[in-house]
Amino acid sequence: MNSEELKKLLEEIKENKLSVSEGVEKIKEVSYHDLGYAKIDTHRELRVGYPEVIYCEGKTNKQIVEIVRRLMLMNNNILATRASREVYDAISEVTCDAEYHIDARVVVVKRQKIVVTEKQIAVITAGTSDIPVAEEAAITAEVLGNKVIRIYDVGVAGIHRLLSKMDIISEANVIIVVAGMEGALASVVGGLVDKPVIAVPTSVGYGANFGGLAALLTMLNSCSSGIGVVNIDNGFGAGYLASNINRL
Amino acid sequence: MNSEELKKLLEEIKENKLSVSEGVEKIKEVSYHDLGYAKIDTHRELRVGYPEVIYCEGKTNKQIVEIVRRLMLMNNNILATRASREVYDAISEVTCDAEYHIDARVVVVKRQKIVVTEKQIAVITAGTSDIPVAEEAAITAEVLGNKVIRIYDVGVAGIHRLLSKMDIISEANVIIVVAGMEGALASVVGGLVDKPVIAVPTSVGYGANFGGLAALLTMLNSCSSGIGVVNIDNGFGAGYLASNINRL
Amino acid sequence: MNSEELKKLLEEIKENKLSVSEGVEKIKEVSYHDLGYAKIDTHRELRVGYPEVIYCEGKTNKQIVEIVRRLMLMNNNILATRASREVYDAISEVTCDAEYHIDARVVVVKRQKIVVTEKQIAVITAGTSDIPVAEEAAITAEVLGNKVIRIYDVGVAGIHRLLSKMDIISEANVIIVVAGMEGALASVVGGLVDKPVIAVPTSVGYGANFGGLAALLTMLNSCSSGIGVVNIDNGFGAGYLASNINRL
Amino acid sequence: MNSEELKKLLEEIKENKLSVSEGVEKIKEVSYHDLGYAKIDTHRELRVGYPEVIYCEGKTNKQIVEIVRRLMLMNNNILATRASREVYDAISEVTCDAEYHIDARVVVVKRQKIVVTEKQIAVITAGTSDIPVAEEAAITAEVLGNKVIRIYDVGVAGIHRLLSKMDIISEANVIIVVAGMEGALASVVGGLVDKPVIAVPTSVGYGANFGGLAALLTMLNSCSSGIGVVNIDNGFGAGYLASNINRL
Amino acid sequence: MNSEELKKLLEEIKENKLSVSEGVEKIKEVSYHDLGYAKIDTHRELRVGYPEVIYCEGKTNKQIVEIVRRLMLMNNNILATRASREVYDAISEVTCDAEYHIDARVVVVKRQKIVVTEKQIAVITAGTSDIPVAEEAAITAEVLGNKVIRIYDVGVAGIHRLLSKMDIISEANVIIVVAGMEGALASVVGGLVDKPVIAVPTSVGYGANFGGLAALLTMLNSCSSGIGVVNIDNGFGAGYLASNINRL
Amino acid sequence: MNSEELKKLLEEIKENKLSVSEGVEKIKEVSYHDLGYAKIDTHRELRVGYPEVIYCEGKTNKQIVEIVRRLMLMNNNILATRASREVYDAISEVTCDAEYHIDARVVVVKRQKIVVTEKQIAVITAGTSDIPVAEEAAITAEVLGNKVIRIYDVGVAGIHRLLSKMDIISEANVIIVVAGMEGALASVVGGLVDKPVIAVPTSVGYGANFGGLAALLTMLNSCSSGIGVVNIDNGFGAGYLASNINRL
Amino acid sequence: MNSEELKKLLEEIKENKLSVSEGVEKIKEVSYHDLGYAKIDTHRELRVGYPEVIYCEGKTNKQIVEIVRRLMLMNNNILATRASREVYDAISEVTCDAEYHIDARVVVVKRQKIVVTEKQIAVITAGTSDIPVAEEAAITAEVLGNKVIRIYDVGVAGIHRLLSKMDIISEANVIIVVAGMEGALASVVGGLVDKPVIAVPTSVGYGANFGGLAALLTMLNSCSSGIGVVNIDNGFGAGYLASNINRL
Amino acid sequence: MNSEELKKLLEEIKENKLSVSEGVEKIKEVSYHDLGYAKIDTHRELRVGYPEVIYCEGKTNKQIVEIVRRLMLMNNNILATRASREVYDAISEVTCDAEYHIDARVVVVKRQKIVVTEKQIAVITAGTSDIPVAEEAAITAEVLGNKVIRIYDVGVAGIHRLLSKMDIISEANVIIVVAGMEGALASVVGGLVDKPVIAVPTSVGYGANFGGLAALLTMLNSCSSGIGVVNIDNGFGAGYLASNINRL
Repeated sequence: MNSEELKKLLEEIKENKLSVSEGVEKIKEVSYHDLGYAKIDTHRELRVGYPEVIYCEGKTNKQIVEIVRRLMLMNNNILATRASREVYDAISEVTCDAEYHIDARVVVVKRQKIVVTEKQIAVITAGTSDIPVAEEAAITAEVLGNKVIRIYDVGVAGIHRLLSKMDIISEANVIIVVAGMEGALASVVGGLVDKPVIAVPTSVGYGANFGGLAALLTMLNSCSSGIGVVNIDNGFGAGYLASNINRL
Repeated sequence: MNSEELKKLLEEIKENKLSVSEGVEKIKEVSYHDLGYAKIDTHRELRVGYPEVIYCEGKTNKQIVEIVRRLMLMNNNILATRASREVYDAISEVTCDAEYHIDARVVVVKRQKIVVTEKQIAVITAGTSDIPVAEEAAITAEVLGNKVIRIYDVGVAGIHRLLSKMDIISEANVIIVVAGMEGALASVVGGLVDKPVIAVPTSVGYGANFGGLAALLTMLNSCSSGIGVVNIDNGFGAGYLASNINRL
Repeated sequence: MNSEELKKLLEEIKENKLSVSEGVEKIKEVSYHDLGYAKIDTHRELRVGYPEVIYCEGKTNKQIVEIVRRLMLMNNNILATRASREVYDAISEVTCDAEYHIDARVVVVKRQKIVVTEKQIAVITAGTSDIPVAEEAAITAEVLGNKVIRIYDVGVAGIHRLLSKMDIISEANVIIVVAGMEGALASVVGGLVDKPVIAVPTSVGYGANFGGLAALLTMLNSCSSGIGVVNIDNGFGAGYLASNINRL
Repeated sequence: MNSEELKKLLEEIKENKLSVSEGVEKIKEVSYHDLGYAKIDTHRELRVGYPEVIYCEGKTNKQIVEIVRRLMLMNNNILATRASREVYDAISEVTCDAEYHIDARVVVVKRQKIVVTEKQIAVITAGTSDIPVAEEAAITAEVLGNKVIRIYDVGVAGIHRLLSKMDIISEANVIIVVAGMEGALASVVGGLVDKPVIAVPTSVGYGANFGGLAALLTMLNSCSSGIGVVNIDNGFGAGYLASNINRL
Repeated sequence: MNSEELKKLLEEIKENKLSVSEGVEKIKEVSYHDLGYAKIDTHRELRVGYPEVIYCEGKTNKQIVEIVRRLMLMNNNILATRASREVYDAISEVTCDAEYHIDARVVVVKRQKIVVTEKQIAVITAGTSDIPVAEEAAITAEVLGNKVIRIYDVGVAGIHRLLSKMDIISEANVIIVVAGMEGALASVVGGLVDKPVIAVPTSVGYGANFGGLAALLTMLNSCSSGIGVVNIDNGFGAGYLASNINRL
Repeated sequence: MNSEELKKLLEEIKENKLSVSEGVEKIKEVSYHDLGYAKIDTHRELRVGYPEVIYCEGKTNKQIVEIVRRLMLMNNNILATRASREVYDAISEVTCDAEYHIDARVVVVKRQKIVVTEKQIAVITAGTSDIPVAEEAAITAEVLGNKVIRIYDVGVAGIHRLLSKMDIISEANVIIVVAGMEGALASVVGGLVDKPVIAVPTSVGYGANFGGLAALLTMLNSCSSGIGVVNIDNGFGAGYLASNINRL
Repeated sequence: MNSEELKKLLEEIKENKLSVSEGVEKIKEVSYHDLGYAKIDTHRELRVGYPEVIYCEGKTNKQIVEIVRRLMLMNNNILATRASREVYDAISEVTCDAEYHIDARVVVVKRQKIVVTEKQIAVITAGTSDIPVAEEAAITAEVLGNKVIRIYDVGVAGIHRLLSKMDIISEANVIIVVAGMEGALASVVGGLVDKPVIAVPTSVGYGANFGGLAALLTMLNSCSSGIGVVNIDNGFGAGYLASNINRL
Repeated sequence: MNSEELKKLLEEIKENKLSVSEGVEKIKEVSYHDLGYAKIDTHRELRVGYPEVIYCEGKTNKQIVEIVRRLMLMNNNILATRASREVYDAISEVTCDAEYHIDARVVVVKRQKIVVTEKQIAVITAGTSDIPVAEEAAITAEVLGNKVIRIYDVGVAGIHRLLSKMDIISEANVIIVVAGMEGALASVVGGLVDKPVIAVPTSVGYGANFGGLAALLTMLNSCSSGIGVVNIDNGFGAGYLASNINRL
């Protein structure tokens, strides 16, 4: 409820269009739908086609399907992340608009047309094994209405691969760098562009990698300026932040 | 050296304006000034007034002053971070344009007028003790040509303080959240706005805070989407990234 | 054995109702039943209906059933935590009073009526995935004789959901906050109430969450005062402590 | 602003005692005093004599004195924690009501009489070196209006010392256990009483103690139920929570 | 080869009973049997009945059986630790003297009578779940020729259980304390006896237990003196060290 | 592209053998084959018989087979590490030159004769369980054209085993020490030779070993000089570095 | 109070030599002297000459001196550890029997003759920098009545130094190994003797040593059996445990 | 004592040139000079000019000077690392051949001419602040007789600086990469050369750098093959290992 709405509401009270007790209720009124185990947001002034997001991990299939059903009433697009094939199958039973991105473990339910930006987001990976996280980022950004370009397996062990792609990368408005192992790619890219860089450490690696900690620390300590880091394997978060920046 | 320049250079060779060996040298030519202990970048196509940055920690005063001197030849603005008062005093001896921001531990040498954006960056802190890091971020952003608004001491322990400022915060283009202790402010702000949020954990706190690790993990694991995290106490990095976003 | 009992015992000796060696034995007498692999407490002056607790992890089904059997001789209510369905099945074979709470992984054997407090404990979760831990806390508190109110999925990413429930929460005598990911909910709630808050970090999350460590550190470092923290996923501990407070 | 107040305000608008724009302002009005670097809470319905708290670490003396001055206008008692002698000296210059507790590093400014509870809080330490943290807890609890009993140096290395004090300890309503090194005292006390226990790990120790981490983990993993843990060395937090419980 | 043997060897050379090159070989001679993937010790002056030990983890069944076969040639007793039932089955095929201790995951092949000490080792556990590790310690000590007494489930949450057993415990020559969760039992026992205490942290627990790290740190930081700690879950190491002490 | 090649290219432009735009393309030309999900290096001036390496973890069988196919076009030898039997089976379907080293989890596709060095690399393990990692190192070194000698199970618990092998070890040009548990072998070997030592910590062990961290820290902190450490279980890295040294 | 004493006390009550209330008091009577900030043990049946121990860190000089004074009343020998020179000076003012061991940071007040064992304890260090911790162990063992032999600077980087001393070491009854950096000495010694080995990690080292953590993990993970580990830099604990073993 | 020497010794005994007891002594004879607190190696067959090394940290000036004096008797060159100016001053009093490298904190005592290799070692740093560690490596390598080339401040944030120096770097026989912050330089260099790379993480950085841990993990997890890592800030170790490789 913004200032304008509050002002209007108070005026309605003044003009007796609304009783005092109704006003109290309205102000305190919850702007979500309550399923008990989940409270579904319904109050956002959404851009056309902007999706609702369901993080599937730790939710039962039954809960997920119920949430999907509720969101479909509002005719929203839906993005379900960390979704196993079983989740996809369950969702498929209530809508035929669901499509499954197996690499990214993402289900997209498209109910409205997505208007796409002209400016684009580049998604880069250091290795082949980082692709699933990169795809989560890329699809998130696309569903949020961004044009995305993918450049995969350009890690620093063979830096000529990266340098040969710098022209394309430099044209992007925002750059997402996805890297596991030591995660050095973010620093090198950060030093070559003057656009916002979002770094996603992945849990790819072994030994003293500690499930992505090595890449995470690398990215946080980058000697290149202008890098924002998200959680390990958090492709969704990177895609979401990139979209927030790209749509400014 | 971009494609255009390379093309031009090759044409000069073809037209015999440039010998082959001159061409080889040119292509390999280093685009920095070499002081031995430091290689100063001189090749950037800079926006007018855009500063060069010196990270002072681990450099001797003598080295810093020499780098400042060299940069002043190019008439750049200069931003020296993590600068003690001794560093400021040393710089003051070679230029009277230096000003010291004691909270932020930043020296600014202003040689050219800075053109300021209309869109603004909000810098928010959870507590009073987080202000030095916030100031590093704010001054960095200002020197990089951004309009900055400061909102300090609005941590979640008294959430009405934050809520009362949401109107101002929501108008900003980019939001920097600076918080120590448990760092929860970033999540709350991230849930209230749909602009890019840059989170800066600070080392403020004690005990199981582990020098800012607690706030860092909080911010990386935020349940709010659209948050990019920088290193602990890295106000400069946050200001720089915010500027890259704000100037898109 | 309290002072009164000791005094009485010594007087019995003095009055020759008890021999000296009997007295020595009595004083040293163990106040538990010894099964070899487990020593079952039998000396507590229990409130009516107060249950005995079995932590099932690391015990064989055979051991658990034997302990249940022994406790049923004393006609106690029994609370078995971290109980798999197999544990429940095994217990069901020796008593038909067992009921299984699948979310909470708790078996309750009710042999006596539980007298319930008037003052209530609020159990709050940040997300849907935190519900199993919350249920362990809630059922523990209920079996210990407390009135419990559940408020689930009110994490800080959508703070209006929490604010809309503050009236109900504020009426509780003790508040248990269950949160994974970054665990910021505890700080926000702690800042809004002046009742004791018990924070339970959960292992819900991924990446730099480190199995609940992120939420644990957040809660320990909370900028809000008056928060006591229990171990990661320790719903039972939270319910037990809340009950100890609520029954004062 | 609670429901009652909101209702009253809306009625004043309805009755034209308040203009709509005044109402908007009132509702949005901040309930704190803004010093720029700090926002001082002024909206709490305080119990008589209840103090305002200043956490001094990371604040300049000038800031602290200014906050003290502002709070004195409201005639509050004040509790300044983590206060060096320099802080005390600075506060002494603006009020002669300040007293310094050197062990606890706490300054108390008493402007109103404190009404003390009958029920008492026991503060226990494992060793002599834990006393400063214990004193922070004890004085906090006292300033918040609680009766406090201190029992120091009863660590488990000589358990007869603890057992000889159990009668006194058992009579307390809430028990604060302060322990460094391995922190085992909390578990032993937790097993001997059925009152809420608040455990405070201290940074006392060396080697693999890791600044209190060993004691912290011990307390979080306690095999005794009913223990809530606060941050390392956080005597204030323990005292505050104990008071919240004791005053229920 | 001790000094006496070396002296004798040199005298044989002097007396021409041994050629110089034979002497060189003898001195350098390896005192083990080499299987390529394993070098089996054969040079120890063994006490009668003293077993050879095989740590099974990371060895294939084929390797284990081959090592057992080789050791049986020397008629040694054999202790195989961390042995799955499959390992036991494989060993059983080459000898019918193998017995399997399922709790302790230990196989014992007894080929010679074990002479048992009079002085005894006490093995104590905090809980029922610590018994497997305790059994590994107890059986190791027994196979090494020590009298062992077991006292299980006497953790500090109900300290009367421990105190009631102190008479028996005090009579032991060496005490092994096995405890998971917070591991406080070692400190309490260490404070009650003046015999060497060997502490074994176990990985029993959850959350911030970190696989036994909590108990390990507790034991290393014990405020009681005279405690030696072995690795997490290392029952064998504790039994071996206790035996070395008990047989002095 | 080295200086010579660049010079030649520029001369061709000058002599009109190459157009300017062709030159631009050539210089920017990528020196790898792009499969989308992987960019295969094709620009190395390889020693005869030198293999291409595929790290299989995180790649699908389909991706691996496609990369193998592409590399075989260039008639290279191929070394596929971290290869499961399924990977081997898949590769076997496209070439009959593949052989599987089951211990080392390595597939070798030999298409050219490997020329072997005279100087040899010694690969030493502390225990039997370290052999798989040692084999990865040994086979890598062999495929890269080095003579390798294996000495297994000579850990410091029976130091006479190591000392008896020092003659052989000292003759090697480079020494790879593979050790888990506490990893002390590297320090002892490092003190006995004056050749480069490469230390490989393994994840063999349990408890406070933390997946190889204990051995890793031991090796990094070695009191012996001249030891270079690679990642935990990184046999390939050790073999590769040893080869780089041995072939100097 | 042991069984015998309890029996006697109960008989006195029976025979009316003691009233019941006197008996209650006696049984509950504390067996220590209470200074408020410290409870001094006075109930131990001490071996002749056995010292009382004061851990000085975290105690004020005034507290230490008061404790010394109290202990001197009982004519005990006193061992004050972690004592700065200031502590020594303060103690010297109340007794002229104090001597300061500057390396070990230990003050010894000798009031009774110490009877020394025949069997000896060997104290071994890896380097020169480990000597202070070794001296704390050695002096502790000596004051507790043990014969001690010191062998310093025999780390594994030059293993011939250690081997040349093995005859002397093997004759000891208990062996204390003190080592920083990677701490490998404990494993090597443990493999060469069949006596109890007590390992003391020291904080000597840098970088990834993490204040002694590297040596601690090495010792806990030792591949040699029969090693008990104490806390980092805990020379006192090692000396105490060694004495407990040596005096069996 | 090698095989040859042992053979000769045994023959002398056979020929009665040496008595048996003399032989025993000789074989057991220590090949070092024993100062009690230090055992100085004197048995190495040294290359001409090869220095003895003293690690100064944790040694008193008196001890260092005594060791220097003893080594000078053998006319060795001496390298004293981690030497403060005070150490240098103390050494200067016993020899005028000492020179102090203030950046590297190294004292060199040159008594013999150093023969220098033709093949050279490249020492590279990411930043200016890494130079002290690099200098420790460079001077160590030089004193050990290697030609060294220094290339400083070529970190990946401005990768053109590195690329412009690749010709020089590629000519080196061994490459030492010294980098703090995120340490990405090692990976990039490792991908560009086929020579052995030794990576030295430095403690330069702040926040989540954790004293060099970030750079250490980066280097251990490098996606480039052929990199050996030494301890944080261990310039000496890198120089020593590089020398061992370069002199093969």
